[in-house]
Amino acid sequence: MLLKEIEAFFEEDVGHEDYEEIVPYTSCNAEIHVNEEGVLAGLEEVKQIFDYMGVPYSTEFEDGSSLKSGDIILTISGAGAKILKAERLVLNFLGRMSGVATLTDSCVNAVRAINERVLVAGTRKTTPGFRKYEKKAIAIGGGDPHRFGLYEAVIIKDNHIALMGLASAVKRAKAKVSFTRKIEVEVESVEDALRAAELDVDIIMLDNMSPAEVRTCVKLLNERAVRDRVILEASGGIDIENIKDFASTGVDVISIGMITHSARWLGFSMTVV
Amino acid sequence: MLLKEIEAFFEEDVGHEDYEEIVPYTSCNAEIHVNEEGVLAGLEEVKQIFDYMGVPYSTEFEDGSSLKSGDIILTISGAGAKILKAERLVLNFLGRMSGVATLTDSCVNAVRAINERVLVAGTRKTTPGFRKYEKKAIAIGGGDPHRFGLYEAVIIKDNHIALMGLASAVKRAKAKVSFTRKIEVEVESVEDALRAAELDVDIIMLDNMSPAEVRTCVKLLNERAVRDRVILEASGGIDIENIKDFASTGVDVISIGMITHSARWLGFSMTVV
Amino acid sequence: MLLKEIEAFFEEDVGHEDYEEIVPYTSCNAEIHVNEEGVLAGLEEVKQIFDYMGVPYSTEFEDGSSLKSGDIILTISGAGAKILKAERLVLNFLGRMSGVATLTDSCVNAVRAINERVLVAGTRKTTPGFRKYEKKAIAIGGGDPHRFGLYEAVIIKDNHIALMGLASAVKRAKAKVSFTRKIEVEVESVEDALRAAELDVDIIMLDNMSPAEVRTCVKLLNERAVRDRVILEASGGIDIENIKDFASTGVDVISIGMITHSARWLGFSMTVV
Amino acid sequence: MLLKEIEAFFEEDVGHEDYEEIVPYTSCNAEIHVNEEGVLAGLEEVKQIFDYMGVPYSTEFEDGSSLKSGDIILTISGAGAKILKAERLVLNFLGRMSGVATLTDSCVNAVRAINERVLVAGTRKTTPGFRKYEKKAIAIGGGDPHRFGLYEAVIIKDNHIALMGLASAVKRAKAKVSFTRKIEVEVESVEDALRAAELDVDIIMLDNMSPAEVRTCVKLLNERAVRDRVILEASGGIDIENIKDFASTGVDVISIGMITHSARWLGFSMTVV
Amino acid sequence: MLLKEIEAFFEEDVGHEDYEEIVPYTSCNAEIHVNEEGVLAGLEEVKQIFDYMGVPYSTEFEDGSSLKSGDIILTISGAGAKILKAERLVLNFLGRMSGVATLTDSCVNAVRAINERVLVAGTRKTTPGFRKYEKKAIAIGGGDPHRFGLYEAVIIKDNHIALMGLASAVKRAKAKVSFTRKIEVEVESVEDALRAAELDVDIIMLDNMSPAEVRTCVKLLNERAVRDRVILEASGGIDIENIKDFASTGVDVISIGMITHSARWLGFSMTVV
Amino acid sequence: MLLKEIEAFFEEDVGHEDYEEIVPYTSCNAEIHVNEEGVLAGLEEVKQIFDYMGVPYSTEFEDGSSLKSGDIILTISGAGAKILKAERLVLNFLGRMSGVATLTDSCVNAVRAINERVLVAGTRKTTPGFRKYEKKAIAIGGGDPHRFGLYEAVIIKDNHIALMGLASAVKRAKAKVSFTRKIEVEVESVEDALRAAELDVDIIMLDNMSPAEVRTCVKLLNERAVRDRVILEASGGIDIENIKDFASTGVDVISIGMITHSARWLGFSMTVV
Repeated sequence: MLLKEIEAFFEEDVGHEDYEEIVPYTSCNAEIHVNEEGVLAGLEEVKQIFDYMGVPYSTEFEDGSSLKSGDIILTISGAGAKILKAERLVLNFLGRMSGVATLTDSCVNAVRAINERVLVAGTRKTTPGFRKYEKKAIAIGGGDPHRFGLYEAVIIKDNHIALMGLASAVKRAKAKVSFTRKIEVEVESVEDALRAAELDVDIIMLDNMSPAEVRTCVKLLNERAVRDRVILEASGGIDIENIKDFASTGVDVISIGMITHSARWLGFSMTVV
Repeated sequence: MLLKEIEAFFEEDVGHEDYEEIVPYTSCNAEIHVNEEGVLAGLEEVKQIFDYMGVPYSTEFEDGSSLKSGDIILTISGAGAKILKAERLVLNFLGRMSGVATLTDSCVNAVRAINERVLVAGTRKTTPGFRKYEKKAIAIGGGDPHRFGLYEAVIIKDNHIALMGLASAVKRAKAKVSFTRKIEVEVESVEDALRAAELDVDIIMLDNMSPAEVRTCVKLLNERAVRDRVILEASGGIDIENIKDFASTGVDVISIGMITHSARWLGFSMTVV
Repeated sequence: MLLKEIEAFFEEDVGHEDYEEIVPYTSCNAEIHVNEEGVLAGLEEVKQIFDYMGVPYSTEFEDGSSLKSGDIILTISGAGAKILKAERLVLNFLGRMSGVATLTDSCVNAVRAINERVLVAGTRKTTPGFRKYEKKAIAIGGGDPHRFGLYEAVIIKDNHIALMGLASAVKRAKAKVSFTRKIEVEVESVEDALRAAELDVDIIMLDNMSPAEVRTCVKLLNERAVRDRVILEASGGIDIENIKDFASTGVDVISIGMITHSARWLGFSMTVV
Repeated sequence: MLLKEIEAFFEEDVGHEDYEEIVPYTSCNAEIHVNEEGVLAGLEEVKQIFDYMGVPYSTEFEDGSSLKSGDIILTISGAGAKILKAERLVLNFLGRMSGVATLTDSCVNAVRAINERVLVAGTRKTTPGFRKYEKKAIAIGGGDPHRFGLYEAVIIKDNHIALMGLASAVKRAKAKVSFTRKIEVEVESVEDALRAAELDVDIIMLDNMSPAEVRTCVKLLNERAVRDRVILEASGGIDIENIKDFASTGVDVISIGMITHSARWLGFSMTVV
Repeated sequence: MLLKEIEAFFEEDVGHEDYEEIVPYTSCNAEIHVNEEGVLAGLEEVKQIFDYMGVPYSTEFEDGSSLKSGDIILTISGAGAKILKAERLVLNFLGRMSGVATLTDSCVNAVRAINERVLVAGTRKTTPGFRKYEKKAIAIGGGDPHRFGLYEAVIIKDNHIALMGLASAVKRAKAKVSFTRKIEVEVESVEDALRAAELDVDIIMLDNMSPAEVRTCVKLLNERAVRDRVILEASGGIDIENIKDFASTGVDVISIGMITHSARWLGFSMTVV
Repeated sequence: MLLKEIEAFFEEDVGHEDYEEIVPYTSCNAEIHVNEEGVLAGLEEVKQIFDYMGVPYSTEFEDGSSLKSGDIILTISGAGAKILKAERLVLNFLGRMSGVATLTDSCVNAVRAINERVLVAGTRKTTPGFRKYEKKAIAIGGGDPHRFGLYEAVIIKDNHIALMGLASAVKRAKAKVSFTRKIEVEVESVEDALRAAELDVDIIMLDNMSPAEVRTCVKLLNERAVRDRVILEASGGIDIENIKDFASTGVDVISIGMITHSARWLGFSMTVV
């Protein structure tokens, strides 16, 4: 976390509060504990926030640790005024990031029970301004963050195809984009999947298909030489319930928006002791 | 939305992409539609983003409108390259803000069915950096955003009381904080609620009590003259299921973290037509 | 003070000066002394500036200390180049903030000589970009900073009333603003003061009235039950000369723009020894 | 004014207020008038602020205009919500900048009555973060803004001389600073003034001398050939009372901190009509 | 270009100059012409700068146009004060960006004379803070910008291999990095090139090899099935003289730092007419 | 270097990379060496970057040191992940700044061989956003950075004269610009040089003249009394080849754009040992 980010987060929550110190600077101890089981994420950020404030802490956990209800994930010792000033900010980081990591972990576990090699990936459906931390939480939860923004891998989506046509869009991307970046195509039918495969792209996203349709696509593509050069990704309409059905289709990656857009926070509290 | 915010959001999603225009600048039309019913929020922000880009649009909706699945909430007409550049950002604003507004609206409706005058309020459990928009979505959904940050109303919470004691904390707040700001005290027992009432505070938060305990507190406080000078707020452990039980206790406000920390997004898509 | 603020202040005064070090880095001692009597403010900021530079200092004073001419408020020991680089910035902080604190202190003393319980409060008439420090200086001088910005307490002023009418403006504020924020109404006649009292607002500002008019208002309001729920504030045309006349009117608060808009700086100098 | 400055000023005064529009967007007219006589400054900034908001205005004045009490310096026509949002910010710009311009104008007039060619100059004793506008107000008031920061002309001051000695400091400055920048030396005695003159500097500041001492210095320097290559500046302890005494000493420039550090605001108000 | 970038560039060159308008606002015409032949880049940025200032312009050129000495690339019409304020900034953009584009174009032409399909690519050897524009200039000159930063394709370089070993570094990258990003390995010997090919990476950079060594590597790799899945890139010690020798080796890409780190500016001037 | 600059430079090169640590944190040693002879610049910046990261280093060099090929200018010891994260940024600083310093040094040496007292100065032809460091590199190479931006010395150039006329432009500058700033006039003929001398300016730039013309100008001006009050600067069309011819003309300063706009980088590498 950059210093300027930490300062911006404090400005949002604390503002101009410098001159009204209700809480005395006398030293105290505090604990942060978790109220339910899950996967810890955000701890690194919390440590950086307390480092910025000059408040010492200790912990036996690390990002990615499995948590059970009641675990004390951090003990802090320092000026009461500083600890209470940081309380809400650090709990918000832990709550949001661990919520994403925990839901990702559930999806990953569901998928791995079927096929160890299938990746669970995120999307760009993230809270504006907070993507960096939500993507990191996906990685901590065992998922693949997927491309970070438009400046990474190119994805030719339905709207691109509507504007330019599939073949033309791929051609244009190859001409305009650095060879260092992958090109992915989003298709919604078996026919388009086969056409995309002929265009020599790096990744084919099978979008909004049923598990049966995905399975058909994979089967047809497995019969072609291009298969070992292309990654197959299923996406669209996938949730924690039906993800297992996609895990057995033979795709390499399942991307799933709900791990960010529908993750509820994990509950954490801070207690002065 | 400030210009600098719009630019920061584009930097996050689009980055340095200026030089690689895969999508041509030829003009096209696009529609944003919603995929499920809910309450619209984020439209004002979307309009400001398209204004910044110089892309014209029209709409028959406004923030707070009730949506049914399939409603076209915005039609856009402009350069394909610009519209696709903004696609994910505007959908993320709509998805997150409408998700919060829709869940708030559900809570408000549940409460109003019991008592028209009880407010449903948010908390500071918001995504770091995005509070302004989540608080606004609460207001659009019919809720009360509650205090924005530490620099608004003072709340004496459990940790403050642990450090300073209740009476001493209130005294200190009155001495250090401007008379223009309200003072709220968080209590966890009937006894503390009565003690807080004697300290002449503006708001008493009955925290982590059962509906029955809340009802008892309200009843005892209703018998006192201070009652018409103090606002009573229930908080802690409240969700969409049990919120009705709190609505009938006689409190003035029910604050509920889940409308931000557990709201899932409302589904929106953009289609080039 | 945030790191980014310190850097912005140095950019204003020092600019790109990195490469032209006229002053050698050899160590020296320096003293900051005050040239007249007053109340010290800005010391905390000065210490943060020297902390940022890694320059050690010591002091026997603190913000709020009474100063007499010649007091050495800080002794500094470090690289000459660094100390001279900071000289003007730290003197400007001390001069401006102590100037505001000293004038506030004078007003507070004048008022307290009449009535111990009357607050002296500031306004939003502050130097753009520097409000945080001027408000803090008011607090250090014994005053009440009053609301920090439009996002704190709502004040219905003459222009609001001209646009919406008094009752309608108050109603609108109550509907649109969180219950956590106070509502204040600015009135210019006894009649309006009484009408405002009936609208159940938190604060009534008696604006641009003579002490006699203020006294009449207070007297009439004291006869009503609402008086113990409403704070009365006198404002407009008050200065260090006539403030005592307002102090005896029975109002709770006297707000006074001159403590920021007409405060002259307190004189400080730095001497290398 | 940069867009980012306008946005920062609004953030200070208005904050996150977007979602709570108490004032309706219905159109209205407003006038800004001045309550006392003085010199107008800040009008350019006010116009830029209303431009940013898209609010039309008209005026018959310009920065530098002489104002008499009651003059309407700007009429505005637009959404009530926008006008009231900008009210305090624009009044603060006008009040502070016109205050500085008016006091500068008084000093300039006092000096010109004695000697038309003597400049009245400012110092770096300005409010941190607001120097650009205070220096501009000095220029509008007919003064010379003097150097803006350490990155402009080099001034060898008492503390530099204490650290390095006069001759050595000048030598070092000449070696380290671009030939495009002037070198000024601050002296406190006739002897040092004569020594400085021999060091071939561009400006000699006669600091903390009485008018008589200044006159002596000027006289002695006038006898030397160097005089037509060096500018003589009196500084230190000068105020609106004694400035005339310095105006007749023969110096070229009188610099005076009080035009920024002791200027009170000029009174402006906005009225919705 | 973002608004905040334009403002930062003006702050660097113009600073606080608002109040000292030496140049009158009277309207004038000006022309920007080029003083030597080359490839135009930076025009888009120049247009955005004049758009920001509200200064109209016209042009018959576009980025990528071939220029001959004396071509007038832009005619401008507007306030003299604004045009001269922007003069140096726009010339600096044109000079630097066109310099990079022109040198890139020379390299591309040299390579294409040998083999039409070989790409000329840049590196991260760019001026800190200005990479976005230098990479764009490479693309305008017909080159491939290569990865923009560490957050795009992963490159396992000599120092990574020294720390972790080749196989282990690749394995770690595959485990830690999203499947959406390519993995490149930098090797300095034929043996390592063959080993890298077995690790199933996307790109192999043949670093600091002679054309003969590169040719050997390519030949050996061409015999393997992996060849159609891996891109071969030559890098290190390549300049405008020897680039043709690399063009005939069979590699797919030649990356060359000198197109940014050794490009001299193309000469442009502005003339008021 | 400000903290915010360091963070911006890392954002450009490293981005959101926090969560994908390919390189382990195990400690290692690394060396930065130079691959050719030249003058070192940028070392101070490199040290500040490693300070920001908390990575220790040692060096026997300083900015301005003469380097021979193979010199190890810095040894670093710390976490591998941190060192590799900083590698490209620090090499880019060293390469660019040392390139400018080295070319400046060559020009300075060429000039000094003819005349010890003639200064070699830079221009404003610098990479947008990086001027501060390029100007500093000029100073380290023994040159004079010349004015930093429009806010320092005023230069009346050809376009100013075209718009206002020479005499009128100088008059306007004297009226509008602080006495603390120098006024320079750019002339392109002997006649204009003589006219400028009569206008009592501080510096006359003899622009785009041949050495013979410059010599003539200097000779004519040497005959006038004004000569000891005015600095003469040759500029335009000067390069490392012809600079000696200008050195003997009698001018005081030779300014030369190529030391920034045509400097190629000095080669540096980092090796993990």
